[in-house]
Amino acid sequence: MSSFDQIVNLIADDLSAVEAKLTENTASEYSFVDMAVQHVVEGGGKRLRPILVVLSAKARGYEGADAHTLAAVVELIHVASLVHDDVLDEAAIRRGRETLQTKWGNKVAVLVGDYLHARVLSMLVSRRADDPAMAILADTTQAMCEGEVIHAYKSGDFDISEEEYLKIISFKTGKLIAASCTLGAILGPHDTQQIEAFTTYGKQIGTAFQIVDDLLDFVEDPEKLGKNAFGDLREGKLTFPIIHTRKVCDDNEKQTLEKVLNPDTDETEAITFVESLFQKYGVEIHCLEIAQSYADRAKTALTNIPQSDARTALQNLADYVVSRDS
Amino acid sequence: MSSFDQIVNLIADDLSAVEAKLTENTASEYSFVDMAVQHVVEGGGKRLRPILVVLSAKARGYEGADAHTLAAVVELIHVASLVHDDVLDEAAIRRGRETLQTKWGNKVAVLVGDYLHARVLSMLVSRRADDPAMAILADTTQAMCEGEVIHAYKSGDFDISEEEYLKIISFKTGKLIAASCTLGAILGPHDTQQIEAFTTYGKQIGTAFQIVDDLLDFVEDPEKLGKNAFGDLREGKLTFPIIHTRKVCDDNEKQTLEKVLNPDTDETEAITFVESLFQKYGVEIHCLEIAQSYADRAKTALTNIPQSDARTALQNLADYVVSRDS
Repeated sequence: MSSFDQIVNLIADDLSAVEAKLTENTASEYSFVDMAVQHVVEGGGKRLRPILVVLSAKARGYEGADAHTLAAVVELIHVASLVHDDVLDEAAIRRGRETLQTKWGNKVAVLVGDYLHARVLSMLVSRRADDPAMAILADTTQAMCEGEVIHAYKSGDFDISEEEYLKIISFKTGKLIAASCTLGAILGPHDTQQIEAFTTYGKQIGTAFQIVDDLLDFVEDPEKLGKNAFGDLREGKLTFPIIHTRKVCDDNEKQTLEKVLNPDTDETEAITFVESLFQKYGVEIHCLEIAQSYADRAKTALTNIPQSDARTALQNLADYVVSRDS
Repeated sequence: MSSFDQIVNLIADDLSAVEAKLTENTASEYSFVDMAVQHVVEGGGKRLRPILVVLSAKARGYEGADAHTLAAVVELIHVASLVHDDVLDEAAIRRGRETLQTKWGNKVAVLVGDYLHARVLSMLVSRRADDPAMAILADTTQAMCEGEVIHAYKSGDFDISEEEYLKIISFKTGKLIAASCTLGAILGPHDTQQIEAFTTYGKQIGTAFQIVDDLLDFVEDPEKLGKNAFGDLREGKLTFPIIHTRKVCDDNEKQTLEKVLNPDTDETEAITFVESLFQKYGVEIHCLEIAQSYADRAKTALTNIPQSDARTALQNLADYVVSRDS
């Protein structure tokens, strides 16, 4: 069994409870809305964020149902952001399934994203007044949007540095992954230092996760990815591997790289050129090393958390985030 | 002074306070995000929903600052929905200003809408646990999305009935306008019957408002509207005047109408034909009569509310919604 399957097995009952919450809290009495929403919610994915909520809660000794509610909330925020991402990227498939806009058009897709946000609000209505979850989620959704807007605004900017890019992804991806860990951790007894350790863990694996995500777009089998290879590149999206390549390659290569990012360039030519640069400069290994360094920092953050199966699972998850192939 | 200006004058200080809340609660430390958000928030519009919150609160004897916060919240929800509408309608201008996607592209526009929702969540975080505003707004945003999704899904459906259409707009437009009145009204002393009167008032003027909005697209000077005339028609959007015309015209005209709704038809030809049908069947007068009947029901709903300047203003506002020309 893979390390990921072992983790999922450890919390299988919790994850079933999360799925039930997801279905219950997204149902619409309007059959078309219901169908469109279930299409994306059941679209699957690894449920990384729910897993992080549940494991963080367990690692702090909490075993109740509120972890399932919060896990469903973060997953819905994540799914909503994917739905809007797919609209903007004009993505035709995601995880091997047709995207909403392929099936029913852009309009339905934008609105389903909005609908999921509305349902998140409904799920938060009944919480205690002093519950910090609301403030954490408000802050998180705001930061995600800010990160996305800045990334969209910078999308034509070939000169974006690795540092700027890492800051953007810490907003776009890192914040919600970190929030998942924080939300789980605060369900345990109050202890600021311990809770912060989980937030740090989440921030670090968030960055590792996104770097590997960026890399998989270039090196992975499209069948496994469930989406088109070199998709980011063909949309002119600058991600970590390209930003790094641009930093290390020579001026001639830099100029060709800029041309290759233009969607008018022949696809095969573009891919062949990028692959040759990746080979020459060891880009794949470099990206994996950087991602592993974030994963290692994530594991270190949990050093002072008392030993438990959940803590071990979180540490294994950090390595899995780097070693995964889809 | 127009009746609308008189209403605005009556609550000028409150509306300034609402504007301050809007600016304060949408500011971003990222200058580009800030600029894009202010572009739409300051885009103006009549601030109908804030006016309704403030007047409903006053008509129930409440004069505090929470009305300004709730007024800003409903306005942000409204602006967010306009931003996403403009993306989906590919609108180039709104209220005489370039839309976000014209200035900075679709991506920024979708994300700014999401950002405004995130800010709404932030504004709700600090409210009391037993505050009904959260539940009302969660229910409202969900219904708005459901209405929009169903409308988008039905957009190819030429056979939509007046009743179906009125139900859709009661969700898309009516819910938030009704919620504005309810949120104002609950700030006064607890009295279920009185609060319900304001909700009913809001539902009725919401429908009146949308029917007139639909009509203005056909009959008003584009300069006044701040957007292109016949925009709905050219996008193939079926709105109340067309749905009504289709019901009353003969079979030949019905067939031609269907052709005219196809964006490939010559624009002048399409407009001339629709105008001739409007003339023949008195569509403009019919729409105004229907809208006025909703406005009258709105006024009647407030009959048992104690007399005050605010109540009078709400009743005048119902008439203004029908008589306005932009």
